Amino acid sequence: MTDKEIEEFLLNIKSGKTSVEEAADRLKDLTFKELGYAKIDNNREARVGYPEVIYCAGKTVDQVKGIVEFMLTKNNNILGTRVTEEMYEAVNSICPDAVYNRLAKTITISKKEVNKPDTYIAVVTAGTSDIPVAEEASVTAELLGNKVERVFDVGVAGIHRLFNRLDVIKGARVVIVIAGMEGALASVVGGLVDKPVIAVPTSVGYGANFGGLSALLCMLNSCASGISVVNIDNGFGAGYLASMINRL
Amino acid sequence: MTDKEIEEFLLNIKSGKTSVEEAADRLKDLTFKELGYAKIDNNREARVGYPEVIYCAGKTVDQVKGIVEFMLTKNNNILGTRVTEEMYEAVNSICPDAVYNRLAKTITISKKEVNKPDTYIAVVTAGTSDIPVAEEASVTAELLGNKVERVFDVGVAGIHRLFNRLDVIKGARVVIVIAGMEGALASVVGGLVDKPVIAVPTSVGYGANFGGLSALLCMLNSCASGISVVNIDNGFGAGYLASMINRL
Amino acid sequence: MTDKEIEEFLLNIKSGKTSVEEAADRLKDLTFKELGYAKIDNNREARVGYPEVIYCAGKTVDQVKGIVEFMLTKNNNILGTRVTEEMYEAVNSICPDAVYNRLAKTITISKKEVNKPDTYIAVVTAGTSDIPVAEEASVTAELLGNKVERVFDVGVAGIHRLFNRLDVIKGARVVIVIAGMEGALASVVGGLVDKPVIAVPTSVGYGANFGGLSALLCMLNSCASGISVVNIDNGFGAGYLASMINRL
Amino acid sequence: MTDKEIEEFLLNIKSGKTSVEEAADRLKDLTFKELGYAKIDNNREARVGYPEVIYCAGKTVDQVKGIVEFMLTKNNNILGTRVTEEMYEAVNSICPDAVYNRLAKTITISKKEVNKPDTYIAVVTAGTSDIPVAEEASVTAELLGNKVERVFDVGVAGIHRLFNRLDVIKGARVVIVIAGMEGALASVVGGLVDKPVIAVPTSVGYGANFGGLSALLCMLNSCASGISVVNIDNGFGAGYLASMINRL
Amino acid sequence: MTDKEIEEFLLNIKSGKTSVEEAADRLKDLTFKELGYAKIDNNREARVGYPEVIYCAGKTVDQVKGIVEFMLTKNNNILGTRVTEEMYEAVNSICPDAVYNRLAKTITISKKEVNKPDTYIAVVTAGTSDIPVAEEASVTAELLGNKVERVFDVGVAGIHRLFNRLDVIKGARVVIVIAGMEGALASVVGGLVDKPVIAVPTSVGYGANFGGLSALLCMLNSCASGISVVNIDNGFGAGYLASMINRL
Amino acid sequence: MTDKEIEEFLLNIKSGKTSVEEAADRLKDLTFKELGYAKIDNNREARVGYPEVIYCAGKTVDQVKGIVEFMLTKNNNILGTRVTEEMYEAVNSICPDAVYNRLAKTITISKKEVNKPDTYIAVVTAGTSDIPVAEEASVTAELLGNKVERVFDVGVAGIHRLFNRLDVIKGARVVIVIAGMEGALASVVGGLVDKPVIAVPTSVGYGANFGGLSALLCMLNSCASGISVVNIDNGFGAGYLASMINRL
Amino acid sequence: MTDKEIEEFLLNIKSGKTSVEEAADRLKDLTFKELGYAKIDNNREARVGYPEVIYCAGKTVDQVKGIVEFMLTKNNNILGTRVTEEMYEAVNSICPDAVYNRLAKTITISKKEVNKPDTYIAVVTAGTSDIPVAEEASVTAELLGNKVERVFDVGVAGIHRLFNRLDVIKGARVVIVIAGMEGALASVVGGLVDKPVIAVPTSVGYGANFGGLSALLCMLNSCASGISVVNIDNGFGAGYLASMINRL
Amino acid sequence: MTDKEIEEFLLNIKSGKTSVEEAADRLKDLTFKELGYAKIDNNREARVGYPEVIYCAGKTVDQVKGIVEFMLTKNNNILGTRVTEEMYEAVNSICPDAVYNRLAKTITISKKEVNKPDTYIAVVTAGTSDIPVAEEASVTAELLGNKVERVFDVGVAGIHRLFNRLDVIKGARVVIVIAGMEGALASVVGGLVDKPVIAVPTSVGYGANFGGLSALLCMLNSCASGISVVNIDNGFGAGYLASMINRL
Repeated sequence: MTDKEIEEFLLNIKSGKTSVEEAADRLKDLTFKELGYAKIDNNREARVGYPEVIYCAGKTVDQVKGIVEFMLTKNNNILGTRVTEEMYEAVNSICPDAVYNRLAKTITISKKEVNKPDTYIAVVTAGTSDIPVAEEASVTAELLGNKVERVFDVGVAGIHRLFNRLDVIKGARVVIVIAGMEGALASVVGGLVDKPVIAVPTSVGYGANFGGLSALLCMLNSCASGISVVNIDNGFGAGYLASMINRL
Repeated sequence: MTDKEIEEFLLNIKSGKTSVEEAADRLKDLTFKELGYAKIDNNREARVGYPEVIYCAGKTVDQVKGIVEFMLTKNNNILGTRVTEEMYEAVNSICPDAVYNRLAKTITISKKEVNKPDTYIAVVTAGTSDIPVAEEASVTAELLGNKVERVFDVGVAGIHRLFNRLDVIKGARVVIVIAGMEGALASVVGGLVDKPVIAVPTSVGYGANFGGLSALLCMLNSCASGISVVNIDNGFGAGYLASMINRL
Repeated sequence: MTDKEIEEFLLNIKSGKTSVEEAADRLKDLTFKELGYAKIDNNREARVGYPEVIYCAGKTVDQVKGIVEFMLTKNNNILGTRVTEEMYEAVNSICPDAVYNRLAKTITISKKEVNKPDTYIAVVTAGTSDIPVAEEASVTAELLGNKVERVFDVGVAGIHRLFNRLDVIKGARVVIVIAGMEGALASVVGGLVDKPVIAVPTSVGYGANFGGLSALLCMLNSCASGISVVNIDNGFGAGYLASMINRL
Repeated sequence: MTDKEIEEFLLNIKSGKTSVEEAADRLKDLTFKELGYAKIDNNREARVGYPEVIYCAGKTVDQVKGIVEFMLTKNNNILGTRVTEEMYEAVNSICPDAVYNRLAKTITISKKEVNKPDTYIAVVTAGTSDIPVAEEASVTAELLGNKVERVFDVGVAGIHRLFNRLDVIKGARVVIVIAGMEGALASVVGGLVDKPVIAVPTSVGYGANFGGLSALLCMLNSCASGISVVNIDNGFGAGYLASMINRL
Repeated sequence: MTDKEIEEFLLNIKSGKTSVEEAADRLKDLTFKELGYAKIDNNREARVGYPEVIYCAGKTVDQVKGIVEFMLTKNNNILGTRVTEEMYEAVNSICPDAVYNRLAKTITISKKEVNKPDTYIAVVTAGTSDIPVAEEASVTAELLGNKVERVFDVGVAGIHRLFNRLDVIKGARVVIVIAGMEGALASVVGGLVDKPVIAVPTSVGYGANFGGLSALLCMLNSCASGISVVNIDNGFGAGYLASMINRL
Repeated sequence: MTDKEIEEFLLNIKSGKTSVEEAADRLKDLTFKELGYAKIDNNREARVGYPEVIYCAGKTVDQVKGIVEFMLTKNNNILGTRVTEEMYEAVNSICPDAVYNRLAKTITISKKEVNKPDTYIAVVTAGTSDIPVAEEASVTAELLGNKVERVFDVGVAGIHRLFNRLDVIKGARVVIVIAGMEGALASVVGGLVDKPVIAVPTSVGYGANFGGLSALLCMLNSCASGISVVNIDNGFGAGYLASMINRL
Repeated sequence: MTDKEIEEFLLNIKSGKTSVEEAADRLKDLTFKELGYAKIDNNREARVGYPEVIYCAGKTVDQVKGIVEFMLTKNNNILGTRVTEEMYEAVNSICPDAVYNRLAKTITISKKEVNKPDTYIAVVTAGTSDIPVAEEASVTAELLGNKVERVFDVGVAGIHRLFNRLDVIKGARVVIVIAGMEGALASVVGGLVDKPVIAVPTSVGYGANFGGLSALLCMLNSCASGISVVNIDNGFGAGYLASMINRL
Repeated sequence: MTDKEIEEFLLNIKSGKTSVEEAADRLKDLTFKELGYAKIDNNREARVGYPEVIYCAGKTVDQVKGIVEFMLTKNNNILGTRVTEEMYEAVNSICPDAVYNRLAKTITISKKEVNKPDTYIAVVTAGTSDIPVAEEASVTAELLGNKVERVFDVGVAGIHRLFNRLDVIKGARVVIVIAGMEGALASVVGGLVDKPVIAVPTSVGYGANFGGLSALLCMLNSCASGISVVNIDNGFGAGYLASMINRL
């Protein structure tokens, strides 16, 4: 709040224009649900289309189940990422509608329809082994209310495969490029399209790949413009950001 | 081209609907100007608003001058980044209108007005030492046809400075966050706004900063959603991408 | 000993003021119990409140059991860290009072009450997955004679959760901040409180987290003052140091 | 295509010299088989001697089986690398002729004879533990139509073993040197022979070997001329490149 | 503010118990001075003893001068770190009382006396080359209102030098240990004293020291308890934290 | 020598078929010229076409001059790499025919013609800044007796520039690809040609380029087959190896 | 061989002074036993006291058994390192006298007594968890014919334990210091003794230990003189080198 | 001191057998000269042959001069390493006998003859650029009382140069091998000689050499036995250790 807003806010309270209850609500605005081991952010649920998101890695099965249980009390879509088979079973026992994508390791629970813009997000992978990350990105973007076009296995070792699908990629409003090994596909796509490119390095590869470092550095140093990078294997982050841009 | 497009393209040539000259133009579409030491991409100039960009680091003064000289023959805006004083003087001798931003180390040559959308880009820095990178981003975004709001020195060590300017940041269509040292500002801003955040790690710092590695890793591992990262000190890349998103 | 102390010490022996036995005791002062595979430091037990500490990683079950067995012969509290289930069972068989904290992977054996100062230590985590490290810190600090306030899951992605609990954090005499991923919470807390902050990076995260390196570098490069860092996942070290400061 | 070729190509279509079908074929030239999860490159099969290659790591058993199934419809040799026992069994169920090399973890399916040049490739290892990588290289080179001479366990710790076999190594047209630990063998061989040396660092070793990094850096910094390096443990890449050179 | 505090705060405004001016002051509490290129934190100046601190690296001479100029308008002590000779001259031209410590590269401007506790901080270095970092720490701690005892050049290569001065070190309330190369001194001191040890790795050394990395890792992995670490060469951070602890 | 060769060699000496002088020559075969600070390898000079090579970095001007002086006594071509201006002047004073390539930092002294094969080597760069490395490679290959085709500034950011020159690249017997930043060009070329590709990462770039590491890792992890890698900026090594392959 | 030796050697053959058989033997001097997957160095067996050594990691059980089987045909001591339980059983089946040290993971087969010098080697560890590496070193040194004194668990966290055993350490002819975590013990011992110190970093520790890197760097950067370092966890290497020095 | 020694020591004082002065001397045994910025170790000077050593990097010219000034008051040899021209001039002004080795960057001041054993140390380098490090090692070893044989420029790229000098190397009691780039020479020498090998990696090289890291890792991972490693470019450390071993 600027100085002027502060004064106005306080004068309104004093004059009764704003009731104490209203003012308290405004100040309490930034609140959350306390579960002890977790504080669930209630703040985001007001905005239509934002699902509740649970990053499940490092949580116990009981913690995941408990968080979902609370979330189900509200009328919102729910997304779980990095979900193990065991976690899914626990969630399924309290919510049979939960959908488990074994490739993406995601759970999705749809409780309301989100309207989708006409434009779409292209999700492009260099190889077959990058598909799990691509599915995490796609599931995220779809639940957030976006159309997704998947273009898989078009890496630069056989670049004609990419050119054949270039029209689909060029038609997107935002492009996610997912690649392991040397990650060169991001630069090539970035040089060919006029749209924002979100590059996702993957840990696919071996040896001097060092767990995805090679693709990460390659993408960060891209000579093409309009490319930015998210963490290694972070399909969720790419899908979320792509949705933000597509729904602007 | 899809199979169908290929057939149609060829039938049109055969039937004379497309003249050989037109067809040749289409195939020559992807061309460039050969300077020997450089191949200048003529392809992008058709699109209104895209300036010619020269990354000057590693080029000789004569090469920079030669490239600008050729570009001046066309009616397009020109941007040079990482420009030394000596390069600027060489450019200035053939183009007195060239503007040199000593902080950003950029040259800009404006040859035509680009119309700007109403929305703006917020360029936010953690400290004073990050300003050169912020200026590179801002100059780039402005030349590409965007309004820019600068919010400097609002790092997390005194987080109230950030909250004081939060309305300006929240009002932007896309936010560039520039920070060295631990780079925590990107996560904090990412947690507070609903817009795409482009994070730029800088080499500001010392010791275990390792030339910007600490800020880079911090930003890549951000727990906030909607953040992506460009190379260390890459103000140009951030400004270019922000423009792409702002002008969607 | 200074020259003067040496002279005095020796003159006292010569004059008989200090008996040979007393002098020997003083020189033997720095001693330990030899177990062959371990030398148990008897030196620290004199000071009230310092428990015997066993770092169990890399030791065999028999070694852990043997060390505890010897320690039980003395009237001192005992703390074991990085204790496996199997080690716990071995210890339990000779000391049914041993308490195993499965989350923290600690064993505690309380043999005497340690009086606690009125001030307390705040143990703050960014996420739910950081809780095991937080418990190791808390258990350590409590056994050493400190009150602990736990504030979990207040990471910067939803910074209002932090502000809501800021009074608890500000009220502490020393604050432990535990965070993985980008570790930004340490800088934010460091900028908001006037007390020493002990930052503990955790290995929580994936990809460019590189086993906790991202949080470690972030914390070491913090732009906020009053922060120091311990090893990745080193809850014990943070709890021990916090106790030292709290009990000054 | 150069400008002149473009014009000629188009004029030929116009004049009917090239039929629309022929022209379409030429443009479709770079095509592939779409399997959904994979796009199989049909382009290479025309060239005699090039087998179809499947890098199996990161693929599911079903994907591997599906890809082989399609490839079997064509009259080409097939090579699978990084093949697990389970994958082999799936392939074997549809192609009993498939040969599994347990050491190299390769599957080979020979459907036609490839004629071999008289010259041979020497595959040299520093130790016994490097043999699996050497076998991957040898199997690859043999399926591609080359004679291979294996010279194993001639590392520099007992350099007389190398000198004893030097005539075999010197007689090759191209030499593959495979070594872990410090990787010094590549430099020693490179200093002794006049032929191209392809160095393959392996992850054999421990401690400051850092997964093959020591051998990799050693080989990249070799003071001997005529050496180049492929990825750690990349026997396939070395065999493929050696074949290219041997068959020039 | 807790819910209850919020309600109370607002009721007090409404009832007039808190005037609008008072309430505004409380909300404006977190404010700063805007200089365009910097936002000076006015918040800390209220607390007696906290000097204004300027980290000068990466700032221009004019920026440093401008910040000092503003700070001089208030009755507070001022500390500048990483100050070049040229910056000092600019500051000296507007404040002849400014004291420049060439070894520590600090400027100090004392405008009021800070009362000091009886306890002291020991600043210990392994070698002569670590003294500049030690001076930065000492100057910081002294300006913040602490007595400092310097113990220099007592590294483990001649450990009797350390034992000779152990009484001074043991007598401190908090110990700063500064060491480059292998940084072993921190562990040795940590094993000998009962007080918090703040370890400062320095970039002193060469080769596999990698700019201070060896000392940093050594200190982070210390087997002694009660040690925490700040950034490489960060004398200021250590002095600031030591003051916090000493003045608790 | 095999056992049989040893026996034959010795019998020939015994029988006098080989004179002692001849045998001594054969055993002395592997000899060199001792200069004290250097041992010049006389062994290679016998083979036509191999120039004497001096790696000048780290040598004093006098050492370089002394080595050239000795080499000039023989009828062989001479190549110096990493030659400073000052070294060149010293060499020029004793050999006015020495040619200095300022871009490549090479000296070449041609004393005899080397016959060249009809095939050629393509030297391809991603950018203008990579040209110095490309020139080192080209000069080396030319002096060793090869035709070279230079294709500069065809990086993937504007991939049509590459396709325009693809016929030149495809026509080569071996291709050198030189690229900094993300180094993606090597993979793209490797996917398009059937010839051995020697990839040279360069240190061109900044930030997360880490002195060429990004391009190096990218090239080592290339998904295309037939690629091998030499050290960062090692134009000489690439030119030497390419010559070996081209002249097979 | 010098020129003179060569001449003499050849003249002796010619004159018959050296028989062809003798000369062949001398030239064949550097030989080995070919097992296909391994070339066993027969060269070393002549020297009394050198056992045959097998580094078993990365070898198959059959390979280990086959190598031992051949070695047993000769009258020499045998040492196997990094031996799994399964390998031991295979060896035991053909040699019931083989002794397996489960801690050190070594097999020793004593076939002849080696006389031992009066001096001894001190093997010192910082902690209990370093004992397996210490045992590998000790077993190696003992089989090579040396007396060993073990001094375990005397790390710097309780440095009085070290001083208590200092006489044993000082009495040795060469000292092996084994430490993980920060590895400071090597520097402390190096500063206290006048004998060569062989430092062995271990992978004991966690977090910023990075698999032994912290101890390795610490030891390499030691400020004490007379210290050298072997690979992480390389007890064998330390024992072998210590024996070389002790038996000089 | 053992318990028994302590008792005896104390009883002797009590009985007057040891005078207070003698006892004080024994306890003061570990002393040094305090210069404020340095504590000069007087302890070592008693032992014949050990020179006073000053590591000059990071010290000011005045500090170096002051330390030498004090050392000159005693009858001992003096060695300064990493000495700049300016430091030498300052030392020369107070000691005209000081000898400056510009290559090694050492100062030596000989005040008494040290008798030398008959055995010698071989100092071997891979290249000409490694000579400065070799000279630092040689000067150190010579001043410490050893004969040194220099064998320079025998790297593995022309391995016959090494074999030609092998007799000199094999004749040494201890061998120092100094190499940059890939450092393979250490392994080759280690495989050929029976003596302790001290390996010194140098920073000679470029690119993926990473300041000597490649040679360091290569040497640490050597497959040959009897090799240990000192810090990159640490000629002094190697010379000192070699002297220790040679003079055993």
